[in-house]
Order: sequence, then structure tokens, then C-alpha cells
Amino acid sequence: MYNFRTDLADERRDIYKKANNIENEVEGIQTEVKEEENIKTTVVKILDEKGEQAIGKPKGNYITIDLKKLNIATVEDIEKYAKILSEEIKKLLEIHVTQKDDVLVVGLGNIYVTPDALGPKVINEIEVTRHILKYMPEYIDPNTRPISAVSPGVLGTTGIETLEIIKGIVDNIKPKLIIVIDALASKSIERISSTIQLSDTGIVPGAGVGNTRKELSINTVGIPVIAIGVPTVVDLATITDECLDLFITKLQDEAKSNDYLNQLKENDNYEEIRKALIPKDYNMIVTPKEIDNLIENMKDVVAEGINLAL
Amino acid sequence: MYNFRTDLADERRDIYKKANNIENEVEGIQTEVKEEENIKTTVVKILDEKGEQAIGKPKGNYITIDLKKLNIATVEDIEKYAKILSEEIKKLLEIHVTQKDDVLVVGLGNIYVTPDALGPKVINEIEVTRHILKYMPEYIDPNTRPISAVSPGVLGTTGIETLEIIKGIVDNIKPKLIIVIDALASKSIERISSTIQLSDTGIVPGAGVGNTRKELSINTVGIPVIAIGVPTVVDLATITDECLDLFITKLQDEAKSNDYLNQLKENDNYEEIRKALIPKDYNMIVTPKEIDNLIENMKDVVAEGINLAL
Amino acid sequence: MYNFRTDLADERRDIYKKANNIENEVEGIQTEVKEEENIKTTVVKILDEKGEQAIGKPKGNYITIDLKKLNIATVEDIEKYAKILSEEIKKLLEIHVTQKDDVLVVGLGNIYVTPDALGPKVINEIEVTRHILKYMPEYIDPNTRPISAVSPGVLGTTGIETLEIIKGIVDNIKPKLIIVIDALASKSIERISSTIQLSDTGIVPGAGVGNTRKELSINTVGIPVIAIGVPTVVDLATITDECLDLFITKLQDEAKSNDYLNQLKENDNYEEIRKALIPKDYNMIVTPKEIDNLIENMKDVVAEGINLAL
Amino acid sequence: MYNFRTDLADERRDIYKKANNIENEVEGIQTEVKEEENIKTTVVKILDEKGEQAIGKPKGNYITIDLKKLNIATVEDIEKYAKILSEEIKKLLEIHVTQKDDVLVVGLGNIYVTPDALGPKVINEIEVTRHILKYMPEYIDPNTRPISAVSPGVLGTTGIETLEIIKGIVDNIKPKLIIVIDALASKSIERISSTIQLSDTGIVPGAGVGNTRKELSINTVGIPVIAIGVPTVVDLATITDECLDLFITKLQDEAKSNDYLNQLKENDNYEEIRKALIPKDYNMIVTPKEIDNLIENMKDVVAEGINLAL
Repeated sequence: MYNFRTDLADERRDIYKKANNIENEVEGIQTEVKEEENIKTTVVKILDEKGEQAIGKPKGNYITIDLKKLNIATVEDIEKYAKILSEEIKKLLEIHVTQKDDVLVVGLGNIYVTPDALGPKVINEIEVTRHILKYMPEYIDPNTRPISAVSPGVLGTTGIETLEIIKGIVDNIKPKLIIVIDALASKSIERISSTIQLSDTGIVPGAGVGNTRKELSINTVGIPVIAIGVPTVVDLATITDECLDLFITKLQDEAKSNDYLNQLKENDNYEEIRKALIPKDYNMIVTPKEIDNLIENMKDVVAEGINLAL
Repeated sequence: MYNFRTDLADERRDIYKKANNIENEVEGIQTEVKEEENIKTTVVKILDEKGEQAIGKPKGNYITIDLKKLNIATVEDIEKYAKILSEEIKKLLEIHVTQKDDVLVVGLGNIYVTPDALGPKVINEIEVTRHILKYMPEYIDPNTRPISAVSPGVLGTTGIETLEIIKGIVDNIKPKLIIVIDALASKSIERISSTIQLSDTGIVPGAGVGNTRKELSINTVGIPVIAIGVPTVVDLATITDECLDLFITKLQDEAKSNDYLNQLKENDNYEEIRKALIPKDYNMIVTPKEIDNLIENMKDVVAEGINLAL
Repeated sequence: MYNFRTDLADERRDIYKKANNIENEVEGIQTEVKEEENIKTTVVKILDEKGEQAIGKPKGNYITIDLKKLNIATVEDIEKYAKILSEEIKKLLEIHVTQKDDVLVVGLGNIYVTPDALGPKVINEIEVTRHILKYMPEYIDPNTRPISAVSPGVLGTTGIETLEIIKGIVDNIKPKLIIVIDALASKSIERISSTIQLSDTGIVPGAGVGNTRKELSINTVGIPVIAIGVPTVVDLATITDECLDLFITKLQDEAKSNDYLNQLKENDNYEEIRKALIPKDYNMIVTPKEIDNLIENMKDVVAEGINLAL
Repeated sequence: MYNFRTDLADERRDIYKKANNIENEVEGIQTEVKEEENIKTTVVKILDEKGEQAIGKPKGNYITIDLKKLNIATVEDIEKYAKILSEEIKKLLEIHVTQKDDVLVVGLGNIYVTPDALGPKVINEIEVTRHILKYMPEYIDPNTRPISAVSPGVLGTTGIETLEIIKGIVDNIKPKLIIVIDALASKSIERISSTIQLSDTGIVPGAGVGNTRKELSINTVGIPVIAIGVPTVVDLATITDECLDLFITKLQDEAKSNDYLNQLKENDNYEEIRKALIPKDYNMIVTPKEIDNLIENMKDVVAEGINLAL
């Protein structure tokens, strides 16, 4: 399988098509694009094993919503984005649960690391109802859906696998569906905190920034998992590789290339340069200077989107 | 039972003695006080049922450590306080577990509400080791104690009882002991963020600020629970009641009282005044203006104290 | 003069009327009240020296806007409140400056102390234009008003009087008017972070929480100063005094009083009780537990209100 | 002059030497290196105009302190680093002022942007004394140095040049020396938040991250300016340029190069690739994922270093 360096099904499909010189659609995959009022929505459906193998993601629906200029979004923009997101969440919800089924919202990530704080920040804004229905039912419409929300922390600061914490909670409170919010890897700087990927296949290993983790999906927790993923950083290694790819392509386009360059590119291997550039003690990331502000706005979009959908 | 309006065993004992005109020690209770270098440590031992009934707390050891002027503490002060706290934690640990037994640290409270943020802030500083022992044992001394840490959030923002979350985690990772950090109620303003109460009896219902919760103790989770409690606010109602008590006592002392005053005080009932003063929509608290700073310093003391002890 | 224990002209007028058994309006003062959609606006005009002496505030207009339930305000509520505030700011602006006159917005307070952070937080949201007009005029409509914004810090952390900093800036950039945002003292818990007082008389000594400061007004900086004040805390001493006042009134109403009580109340002196209750090392405040959230919402109202008005 | 892409005199000297194949010292420059306990200190003295022209910095002393592994520093490490920094600050202070001369500490940067927040965060920790000496002299040793501290904000959020704000304050409070804390550009990822550059030549245009600004030095404010600069981010453009330089060098070393490559490198011009990689709406930065934590530790080192020195 390719090293796609991205978790977005959308980007993987483009890479696969380009690498294999496919003009039309990849077999086993179906794609729809719609665009309205500055917002582009792409639905990539992986239909079968062929599609799975092509882009290395499990069968299911992957909806990518591209927002523009979130760093300077007004209150009205954020409302609009939240509504669009909530429509897409609702469609996935309707496939898997009824209007009154219990939903648990899980925010992955570390509140103390700015680009990783989206999950915990969203959790703080979710309108939970489970405890009111349970302890003060007289204060609430009995048809309200029971909603709970947790932010389990990350392995590095808890010492516990996220999956172990979530499974414990699921065993105790028995929800019918999980919505999980997480940071994704993208290979495109433009998508940092301006793209939302929605899927009903859960979170699979290798996704996310930095640490690998155990799968969080129907296979491990026994209930459907809707994943809301937002790219918040790009790995520096991804950028430097991309940079060298572009450079070599440029040399080749100008017929200045030689076989050696060609070979370098095929090997997808700039290890030596990466080592010279990036100190190994640190996990270097590329991020817009306005990341604090972007995360705040994205948090509002996602939290409001979930609240409206539920 | 009295409405003690405090979770500190120390303060409850004083109130009980005063109310019952007891000169020496309360039956079923044993107390030791030591003072060194500006720090007063009081150990209240509740020995039997008589002691339990007197002050409404389960049998066990309650150690109160009073720090002075934490708001202007230097780095050296904080180190000193942490060492004293760690000594007391070690004594309790040795009673219940061996040097290598697995410990789970739990920080109760809400990171987004300043006076309630102590627990989650401490968790962020705990040196967890469980995941290293499990996934990268070659990087760590095999005799290291496995330590994990979680901050489960509060019922109001998760919709889930803290106990349900903790039980799920305990079932999955099977620690031998829990250390829980929590905000307590005190009736004394002077003790806000400058007193630490340590006990090996867990957290019992009614403790803490605001919401009542289910007991977190050996009875509910099946393993010993060491509780580290810090008063961070005083209820405004406590202050106004105290204020009126003082006033009436003053009138009585000066022989200006009458039977009516006497009766008022006995009834322990200033409901009417409280209603006139305190709007019912809000949970009013009394806190020093420097609370943000106090919480930061206390977090350092508690986190370092736990790290040293473990 | 009375110890009004409040900076709100509105509250001072009520206290003065009650204390002097005045049924109608106080001489030298004129008041209008309007109420629409849950929001009460009171305009107190101090017309002459008689009015000044009665309530201890300089001649000018004092507009008090009372918002309800700001802690649970929706995005729409915040927009509505901001619009009402901006209308009142515009009226004051039109009295003193033209549409193109340079305005400096000043946020008083300490960003690191939650209830004192309103001023600096508002400053972060002001849409400044002065530098664009000066350095990149091609990017902006030439009729835009030049707006700048500073947050000078507090005496305790800078070592410099706020007035000294502001005067230095005014000398260098020569604005035509200052809008200053500040925390006020109120005697009513209900008004914490839910009332905005607007005036065109600047900030006068003794106002605000805690430290006394030099006047910031046309008398000291030479240009008009519009003040936007928001009560964010109540002094604990104010609450205990209020509590005892209420108690004594109650005793008197029930004819249980005696001359001694009467005398106590007239002296306005509960010093002894205050000392017993409140440790002198700390500046104790009373605040809703939700203060972090309230300040965030109020910041949005004030910043948006100013942006719309300018 | 070269485009050094770094504000560290140390790095500029290395680049100049390499570019001009100089084996020994650059004319007009003198360098000393000492290393103790894991900390390397380099003093670059620019002695005359020749030195100035070589590396594009004004005559003066540039001390670079390299700390190791600040992200995992203990309390003791931070104390040690602060002491070393304070020794270097003292040496510069003694050249310019007496023990009792008034010092103003200025923290540049934006508190709301994590990698730019170092300056304002340090200011919050400075022990100011000027107001105590002025208003409460009975509480302080009369030989204490008057210290004040301000954090003027950045042009983008105030609309006012930093220099205009500082000049206004200097005119009013008349200090004898300024210490300014600022973010610097470095071209080396390893130095992010682990290097401190100290100089007595102030801050000159083009320094810092992002916006150009007016010089803050004895030439503009009339008093000596000690600058404490810390690299907190590296521009993504710097990294990609560096990446391509390394790549071309590699090709050339392996004799796979051609004239075209050579020419590309000399022109120092990868504009086209930079444009393809980096979206122009954002100011992209490269930073370690642990930047929040690094900034906290660096803040402690710098604040404590200044406090000890003063």
C-alpha cells in the first residue's frame, strides 16, 4: 500500500488516481461533489474490497466538507457551517439509530496542546441530557435523546489506551452509537482547520497525529462509530517530501532531469535529508500562526453542528 | 446530625466539641497536632462508631496540612510543601499496597471553572508509567510502579456519573489503589487553597462543591481510595450564616439579646435572609481575588507531592 | 457623603431616595426607564451640582443596561444585546466627535485574574484600523474611522499608573476620544456580569474593584472619555454588611428590636464582625461559580457593541 | 547583504564564514565559547563597521545561551538556567546603569498566539517595585531598584506602533534602561525555545516573526536597550529553502549535478516551489508539537533570570 500521508479519503483517491493514471473513477469507489455558497462537499463511497484496497480505508461513507477562510469567519458564517455539518451528521445518524437512541460523544486529544485540543474543547460545548433524563426527568421533554460526552485524554498523559477507557464507559452506560471527534493528518496545508471529514467507519489505527492507537469502531466497541475528523497540523516530514517531489517534477518538466532523479522520486525516500533537517527529539509540525483562533472557530462549528444534529 | 457545612474532619471535630461543651477529646476520636516551619499538620483518627456518629465521617485517618501564604510561595516553598505532602501520602500507601502495585490517580472537577479546576490540572502533571511498562518496557526500570491518571469530567458536562466512568476504567485496567483529588467545602475562608486534607476513606456523598455525587470508596470500586481534598471556595450561604451567628453571639454577649434571638440561632435558620441576598439562579461562591494564582501553586504542590510519593 | 458601595448611578440614586425618604425624583437628577424584549435601560442624567452632591458622581449621562440570564445566552441573544449597546454608544459618540475622528479604546484590568479580565479580553476583539489607514491605505475605505486599542495592565503588575501609560499614548497618537472598559463595584449580586453602565464622564477615583487609581477623564487626558463599566464581583464586605442590615430590619419590623440595634444600624459599622469573618491578607470577592463563562459572553457583547458603534 | 533568515548573530557568523570560505574569525568580529553542565554560551562581539557589514547587525555584544531538552526540564534545571541567564544580564546591566537606576521591562508579542506569547507571559512574572517605592515606600528597602513592566501588544491588534507606545511611557516615567523580551527568527529547528540571545543593541527592523517594525534602541528611545530574544518558530519558507539547498548539495556531492542545479542554488530562489507549497493567506510556521509546554518553561527561565539580575 502507498504511504498516503493523509487520512482524508478524498485526498487518497486523488493520489491513487494520479499514481495509476486513472482518468475516471477508481473501481469500487463512487464520488459525488456539490458546491454551494463557498462550501464544497465531497462524498466518497467505498463500495467493496477493491475500493478498500485501493485507498486503504474500510467500506463506508466519507464526507469531506471544505470551509473557506475560517480564521476570519463571522458569527453568521459559523452558524451556516454548523448547519451544513449537522445535515450530514443527521444523514449518518438516521442510517444507524432511532431518534431516541442514546448517543455518547467522545473528544479525543490533549487539551493542553493547542493543535490537539479540538476534541476536548468540543466536548465542553456539547449539550448533555443523559443525567437530566435520569435524575431530574421532570425538567425535560421525555422524548429528548439521552446524550453524554467524555474527553478521555491521551495515552501519553493517562497511561491508559483510549479504547480501554471508552469500552469501560460503554459497558456501564450502554449507548447505541458513538460520535468521536479527532485530529487527522492531511498532506495539504490549505486544509488545516478548514476541512471536516465525516465517516461512519470509526477511527482506525495510524490515523491522527503522532501516536498510533487501537481501532475505535463497531469491531472493538460493538456499536456504530461516527467519526468527525479535522486536520489541524501537517507533519513537517510530509511537507519536505512534498517539497522535493515538486522540485524533481519541475526539473523533469524542464528536461533537466536524469535517471538518478527519476529513481529518487520512485523510491519515495528522502530519509537522509529529513534526518538532516528535523531533530529527532521533537515531533515537528507545520501550522498556521493563527492556529489558536482557527481551533476556536472550528470548535464552534463542530459543537454546534453536533448539537443541532442530536 | 449537624449541618457542619465543612468536609474537613478537623473543623467538624471543633464544631462538635464547641456545641457539646466538650473540653478534652471526643469519644471515639484521637487527635495529634505537629507544627514545623510554618506548617501545621493535624491527624484526626476516627476509631469507632461513636467517632463516626459524632462528626459524620467513616472510620479512618484524616490528615490536615495547613500551608501559609501559598499565594506568594516561592519555588522552594512549593518544593517543601510537596515533600511534606508526599511523606503523608507514603504512610497511607504503605498501609494498603506494596511498592510495585498499580495505582490510578483520578482528578475530579471541571477544567473550565477556575475554582473547580484543581483535579484536572494535577492530572496533567502526574508522571504516568503504565503505558511505558506495557508498550516500551525496554525504556524503563522494570521495578517502576505502574501509574495511570484520568480526569473524568463532571456530571453536568458529561451526563455520566463519575463513579460509572471510574468503575469502567477500574474493570479494564485493574489497579490496586486509587488516589482521588477533589475540591472540598470548608467553612473557613482562610483555608481556601491553603489546606490539604488527606484520608484513606475515599470520597463520600455530599462532599465537594455543588452537586451531590455517588460515593467513591472501597465499598463501590472494591479497592482502597486515598482522597486528597482541597477547599477552593466557600459557599456564600455559609458565610452569611456564619456572619449572623457571630452577630447574634455578640448581641448575647453584651446582654442585649432577647429570647427571640436565642431561638433564631437554635433553629439554624436564616432562610429568609439568604433568599433576599442570594439570587437563586446562581451558585454564588466566595473566593480570594487571587484564586487563579492560588490554584496554580496548589496544583504544583499536589502534583509534585503525588509524584514524589509514587 | 454616603458610603454607597456601588459605582452604578442607578443604584446610588435608589439608595439616596430611600435614605432621605424621597418619593419622586432627586433634585438635580432626571431619570428615564425603557424596557423592551427582556432588556431594561435606565438613563440617569445628573444635571447640576445638587445632583452631583446627592449621589457623588460628576455631571453627565449614565446609561444602565440590564441583560437577563447572560450565562445561558444564545448567539442571537448576544447579537441583540450588542446592537442595543452599540445604539447607546453611538448617541454618546455623536455628542463629542465626528464620524471620522480618531478613537482609542482602552481595556483596563488584569488578563490573568478571571473577574478582572473583561477589559483586556474586549481589546483583543476590537477591529483596529489606524495602522491600515497609516501603512496600507490602499486596502481600506478612506472614510474609515481610525481606531486603535490598548490594554495597559494594572498598577500591581506594571508598577506604572494606568493614567501615565494612557497619557503617553495620547500624546503620541493624538486621538479625539477614548472609550474605556472597566470592572465596576456593584452592591447587588444579581448584576454581576449582567449589567452595563455607560457614561461620558470617564473613570473617577475609587471606582472599580480593589485599588484606587487616578481619574481618567477629560480633566486629565484633555479629550472626552466614554466609560463602559461592568460589575463583575461584589466585595464580601458589602455582602456581609447588607446581610446584617437585612437582619436588623427584620428584627425591627417584628418589633423585636431595641435601641441598641437601631444605633448599630445607623453607625453603619460592623467592623468587628467583618474582621472576624474576613482574613485581612486576602481581597475576598463574591462571584457566581459560572464567572468564566459569564465573562466570555459579556466580552462578546461589549466588543461587538463597540465594533458596531465605531 | 545576504538573506540570513536568522536573527542570531551566532548563526549569521557561521553562514558568512561558510559562504566566504573563511577558516578563522571574520574581520571585525571576536568570538568566545564556553560550555558547562550541558549549557553552551557563545559571545559574539561585533567590534567595528567591518563586522557590522559582514553579518548585518550593529556593533555590540551578542550572547547566545543554548539550553538542552527544555521540554523535559525539572524545577532544578529551570533554576540553574535562570541563574546563568541572570549572570549574563548583570554583566550587561553593569556596563550601562548603576544598582539603583530605574529599569523598564517590555514584553513584545501577542498573548493570544501561543508561539508569540513569551513576552507578555514573562511580564506577568516580573517583580515590579516602582509603584511600591512611589506610593508605599515604608513597605520596601529604600535601596531597591525601581522596576516597571509593560506588555504593549502588537501592531495588528492595537493599531499603534510598539515604538510609539514605549516612547510615550519612557517620556512619562523616565527609566534609565529598557530590557525587551521578544521572539526571534532562527533558521534551525533545534533552537526553537531552547536558545536565548542577549544583546545590548536593542531590537532592529526585520527582527522577530512576521511583521517588520520600527527599531527599539538607544537611537529611538534615548536610553540603552538590552534585548532578550528567543526563537520560538521557524518560517516554513526557511525550512523548504533549507531542504532544497540540502538536496542540491547532495546531488552535487554525488556528481549528479548539472549547471542548471548550480545556478538555481546561487540564485537563492525557489519562489515557484514555495508558492506551490504554501498558501498565501496564511503565515505558516514550523514548531514542535510541545510548543505550549516549551513556552511555559522558557517563560520561567527568562522571568526568573531577569528577577535575579535586577
